[in-house]
Amino acid sequence: MFTAGELPVPPALGLAIVACMDSRIDLFALLGLHLGEAHVIRNAGGLVTDDVLRSLALSQSLLQTRETMVIQHTGCGLHGDEEHLRRRVAEATGAHPPWPLGAFDDVEASVLRQLEILRSAPGLVEDQSARGFVYEVETGRLREVG
Amino acid sequence: MFTAGELPVPPALGLAIVACMDSRIDLFALLGLHLGEAHVIRNAGGLVTDDVLRSLALSQSLLQTRETMVIQHTGCGLHGDEEHLRRRVAEATGAHPPWPLGAFDDVEASVLRQLEILRSAPGLVEDQSARGFVYEVETGRLREVG
Repeated sequence: MFTAGELPVPPALGLAIVACMDSRIDLFALLGLHLGEAHVIRNAGGLVTDDVLRSLALSQSLLQTRETMVIQHTGCGLHGDEEHLRRRVAEATGAHPPWPLGAFDDVEASVLRQLEILRSAPGLVEDQSARGFVYEVETGRLREVG
Repeated sequence: MFTAGELPVPPALGLAIVACMDSRIDLFALLGLHLGEAHVIRNAGGLVTDDVLRSLALSQSLLQTRETMVIQHTGCGLHGDEEHLRRRVAEATGAHPPWPLGAFDDVEASVLRQLEILRSAPGLVEDQSARGFVYEVETGRLREVG
């Protein structure tokens, strides 16, 4: 019987993907990925946070990925106003969130911003490259940005 | 034609999954998930970092998830010694990583630690529940911990 443990640990495509946690996105199906091909990093928004940089540093340094795809999407729950989102989270949890939530107004601009953060971040390798995409949940189209 | 945009945004199972970025893990295939059922949060290790808490706060507050699965796995690149990993990252990138990398010795103990962090974290809802699992890449078995 095949098990994932038989695959090499370094991703075969030398690729790491940063994408939103949205339940409507299955990256393996969307990109035609197979097991063992890419690291999959996901959080609310698909933002390049410090934790994503930590993950990418490990991905690049220990497992030789060199290319990063950033995928944000239309209809994201982070689309909108930070203060408004903070109030909604505070109402639901009874406490003001102790971290910025990462709201954004414009998904294309946000993808470009994530690429900027990636390209100037400390702790990553020199010869990395990054590309940004918007996934349109309404059409199923994956559109490159920048 | 079906598009993901036709699905409701709140995950149908009320579930968020926190798992490692490892390329050998396809959570949709592993868990038999369908589009629209669960938020998928992934980073190096499957650790409950501040960025994961941010994502879960949004998942719970805006999109009504109440259950969290934490999935770490055998053969993880973070298994081992923090100082040793830091040296390897510094050699590859030319800079000391500005964040803790999150190395752990024992995967079961690490899953239990992530559950503790989740259960005592600020910014999450009161009525959440969390369960922890180890995915054995060698056998394909998903084993509950704790």
